[in-house]
Formats: sequence, structure tokens, C-alpha cells
Amino acid sequence: MKFELTILGSSSATPIHGRNPSAQLLNINEKIYLIDCGEGTQQQLLRFGLKAAKINTIFISHLHGDHYLGLMGLLSSMHLVGRTKALTLFGPPELDELLQLHFKYSATLLRFPLIFKSTNSNTPAVILENSDVVVETIILNHRIHCTGFKFTTKPTLPTLREDKVIALDIPVAHRALIKKGFPYTDASGKIYPADSLTLPPPPIKSFAYCSDTLCDGSYASQLEDVELLYHESTFLHDMLDRAIETYHTTALQAATLAKKVGVKRLLIGHFSARYKELTPLLEEAQSVFKETQLAIEGETFSI
Amino acid sequence: MKFELTILGSSSATPIHGRNPSAQLLNINEKIYLIDCGEGTQQQLLRFGLKAAKINTIFISHLHGDHYLGLMGLLSSMHLVGRTKALTLFGPPELDELLQLHFKYSATLLRFPLIFKSTNSNTPAVILENSDVVVETIILNHRIHCTGFKFTTKPTLPTLREDKVIALDIPVAHRALIKKGFPYTDASGKIYPADSLTLPPPPIKSFAYCSDTLCDGSYASQLEDVELLYHESTFLHDMLDRAIETYHTTALQAATLAKKVGVKRLLIGHFSARYKELTPLLEEAQSVFKETQLAIEGETFSI
Repeated sequence: MKFELTILGSSSATPIHGRNPSAQLLNINEKIYLIDCGEGTQQQLLRFGLKAAKINTIFISHLHGDHYLGLMGLLSSMHLVGRTKALTLFGPPELDELLQLHFKYSATLLRFPLIFKSTNSNTPAVILENSDVVVETIILNHRIHCTGFKFTTKPTLPTLREDKVIALDIPVAHRALIKKGFPYTDASGKIYPADSLTLPPPPIKSFAYCSDTLCDGSYASQLEDVELLYHESTFLHDMLDRAIETYHTTALQAATLAKKVGVKRLLIGHFSARYKELTPLLEEAQSVFKETQLAIEGETFSI
Repeated sequence: MKFELTILGSSSATPIHGRNPSAQLLNINEKIYLIDCGEGTQQQLLRFGLKAAKINTIFISHLHGDHYLGLMGLLSSMHLVGRTKALTLFGPPELDELLQLHFKYSATLLRFPLIFKSTNSNTPAVILENSDVVVETIILNHRIHCTGFKFTTKPTLPTLREDKVIALDIPVAHRALIKKGFPYTDASGKIYPADSLTLPPPPIKSFAYCSDTLCDGSYASQLEDVELLYHESTFLHDMLDRAIETYHTTALQAATLAKKVGVKRLLIGHFSARYKELTPLLEEAQSVFKETQLAIEGETFSI
């Protein structure tokens, strides 16, 4: 099962040092989800050879410009290149008003259905469920209402062992039942338990996106079983006062949280313009939690 | 007198082929004016080493996304890096509503005064006049209200000839009068006409920005004395039907207009995504009007 995250933007607040504002692309079984959409996201997609047309669902965490100002342009471009396929957009309720005003004054009548689903910034909730994934919101603590998103793969059935199918010549009609756990009885009456004929399904895995937030631990319980945690790390810890004042997180705090809740891997991003070089942020986080990586634009992380 | 235009974006509708949506930077005597602000304009400024902080006036032609969607991000970044200097913004009246809604929902209280001045899309009008330049609107014919802008340098006084000042030892008190055209009488009673002591002032020059528009000639009279005309040339002339349908211009039409009104030079841009190579557009325009150049991003044109 493919479960991959590609970084499109890693800068906080303003584009700088060749870094763009927040945007990430998630590929789950070739279904493509966009998380946040800072200005220039459509240019980043072009730069990395990724197709905007494949995006069917977009999640916007909050309405600071560096997390959503690329959305109007992306939707307009989808419209202009002739998209007709529906697109689902999750975000704060005010986002719809902002979009509709832009469409009104630019006289844009979208050629595709844009299905807007408002997020609730008070209570975590499952907002999407399909055959691949369950998506729930994470309530973050920022200057304005802000939600993170947790993507958890759905349990799948075991895979039939090809060698057993051939050796026992298992009829097609029986195969789905075996995958569901029923034993198989061959023509001679011999019974084979399902688990002797199957390989275990891929484990359930989660990816959590936490940006932007004060690192107050209020959302820690939702991160406990997470394989990959993306957590904003705007500042080094010597800027803790500034982080608290602006409702952001330091690299040390993100790593401490990752260690405490027991995630497998941590990805840090949303870097302040003051850091041209990112190594100090990485080293600070790794001093607490070794399995930390930098969210470098254009890089893909397998989950 | 410095009068220079730098291209920041040359693409129509969507960013493509490494080209960005419309934006141009005008430097008149080191005062910096931005004309249109498509998505990614702030990234283009960074790319070309140009300082957003120097921009004090912005002109927005119309509210199609490719001409204004970089504005919220640019203003937000100016705010975030601590700008306190006032900025004047000219644009359609609805632009202010769009900006205010973004500021409201992103909880942005700008640190600098943003002086919004609404353009009128029915009648050409002088909208700005300072010691360097007069700016007037050009009423274009697009799917939504759209104005072009014409920048005309102000007449300046002649320059005193340094050799004459030294040879005749002209007192400081007389110099301003001579520049204003008064004759100079030396101690012996000899009279020198002002024009024998001065060099003529630099000629008045104009730059006109015409994007986006049907090329219907309705605004031709405002272009007659123009040194450099930037005119959108979205399509080749074999796409004339499409140009008319979408209220755009072909390269041949732009060149024919330039020749007819007698501008000195033509700059074409706002290229459709269908043209990866721009040479055919240039050649088509030059077949009618030889003094045509392509609006290449990062290039500066002296006026």
C-alpha cells in the first residue's frame, strides 16, 4: 500500500531562502490529498512534476496567508485547464466565504463541483472515511482557529499466498472467504486454517500534520500511535519566548513531544525566515529524538 | 532620469513553462511602482534580488486571479517583516473588500497604513501625480472591469551647463532663475539668454500598460505619444476567434495597434499556456512592427 508524503512548502510566514509557504501532498494508494496550500503551491507542483489534476481532496488547517493563499490560484487553474471532476475541500467555515468572494469578483463559474466541508475547531472529529483512510481533525492551539489532520489507513484483509493457491489449486470462489478468515477444505476433506494460506495484511499506519500550534500537549493523545508526525518547529529553543508569544513551537519542544507520545518518526518544518541554514534545528530536535528529519521541499517520505 | 521596467510575470491565466502570472516593476527615479501582482510575485522579487520594501505604490488592473492573487501574500509579508511606511494601492473597488476579508479572517492588523484608492473603469482619469510622474487609467475592454495605466514623466527644468557656471562664476542665487528661463546679466552688464547657459531637459516619456483587453482600438488615442507600450498578446493571430471570445489580443493585433498609433517600442506578454516557445509570437508582431520585444521575466527595459 502506497502511503507517501511530499513536501511542497516548508517556510513559515513568508517565502524566503528558496523556501515556500506550507503545502504537502499525500499519496495514499494513488489517491492524492493536498494539505495546506500556501502561495505558490501550484508553481511548486509544476516544479516537482506533480499533477494538480490528480488532487481530489484538500485540507486547510487555518486562515493565515502562508497556509491558504495559493488555494484561489490552484482552484482557478484547475478550472481554466478544464477540470470537471469534483473536488472536496475541508477548512474553517470562513474559507468558503473568502473563495466565493474571489469567484464572484473574478466572474469565475467553476466548471467542476467544489464540495466545501467546514471543519470544527473545538472538537476532534472524523471528517473523511473511504476505503483507504480515515481522516480526523486535531485541535491545535494557535492565534486563530487551527486544526491539524491525522490520516490513518484502514485495516485491509490478509493477502492470499500465491504458492498455496497454486499448490492446492484453490478455486476462485473460495479465495475471498479465506481472506476473510474462513478455513479452506479441499476435495479430500483436509482443512487448512486461513492463516496458513495467507500473509498478514499491511499494518495500520498513521500520519499526523500539526501546524501551526503552541506546543502545549493538549493534542498529544491523538498522536500516540502515529508512524510519522509532521510538527511545526518554527524556532530554535533559545527563541522559546517568541514561540509562546506567536503560538508556535520550538524544535526541542516538537522532539520532546514526539518522544513522549512514542511516534516512530518526526518531520519538522515551518521554518522561520531567521534560519537560512536548517541544520541547527535538526540537531536540536535529534538531541532529544533521533528519528527526526527536515521537511525539505521536493522530498518524499514513505510512511 | 531613471525610467525602467522589470518583468516579474508574463504568463496568462496559469503559471506554466517556468512563467509566472502578470506583474511588472517600474522604477521612476528610484521610486518603485508595482503593476499587477499575480500569485508568486513576492517569490519573483526574491528570485531577481528586488526589494519588496521599496514598493510604495501598487496598481491592480482587474480582479482575474492571475493579476492580483499575489497581493494578499505580498502585503502580509510586508507586514510580517515590520514595514511601517504607508503603501498606496490603486484597483477596482471590490479589491478592498477582498483584502479586508482576508485581513479579518487571518486576524491581521497591518503595521503600516494601506491607502486604498478605487479606480473607475468607465472614464480615463489621472489617479496619481507627483514630482516625477503622472499616472492615468486607460479603459480596457475585458470580461470584467479592467483598467490599464499610463505613466508619463513630468516636465523638468533645463540643467545648468557646468562649464558656463564656472567660466562666468554665476552666483548660486541666480542659478535657479536661469533654469526657469530668466536671462543672466553679469557684473559688466552683459546679458546671456537662459538657453545659452543650459542643456535641454530630458524629454517627457510615457509607458503604457494594457492588459487584459480585446484589441478594439477604443483606447488608442491614449497611446499616441507613448515611448514603450506593454500590450498583452495572449494568442497568435490564427487564434483570433478565441482571442475575441475571451476578450484578449493577438500578437498581430498588438503590433498593428502599436504601428497605427506610432508608439516607439512594443513589449508583448501575457502569453497563453499553449506557447512553450515564444518566438512565433515575437515574429508575428515584428512582421508588422519591427520594434517589438518579448516580456521576458527578470529582464529590464529602459524607457
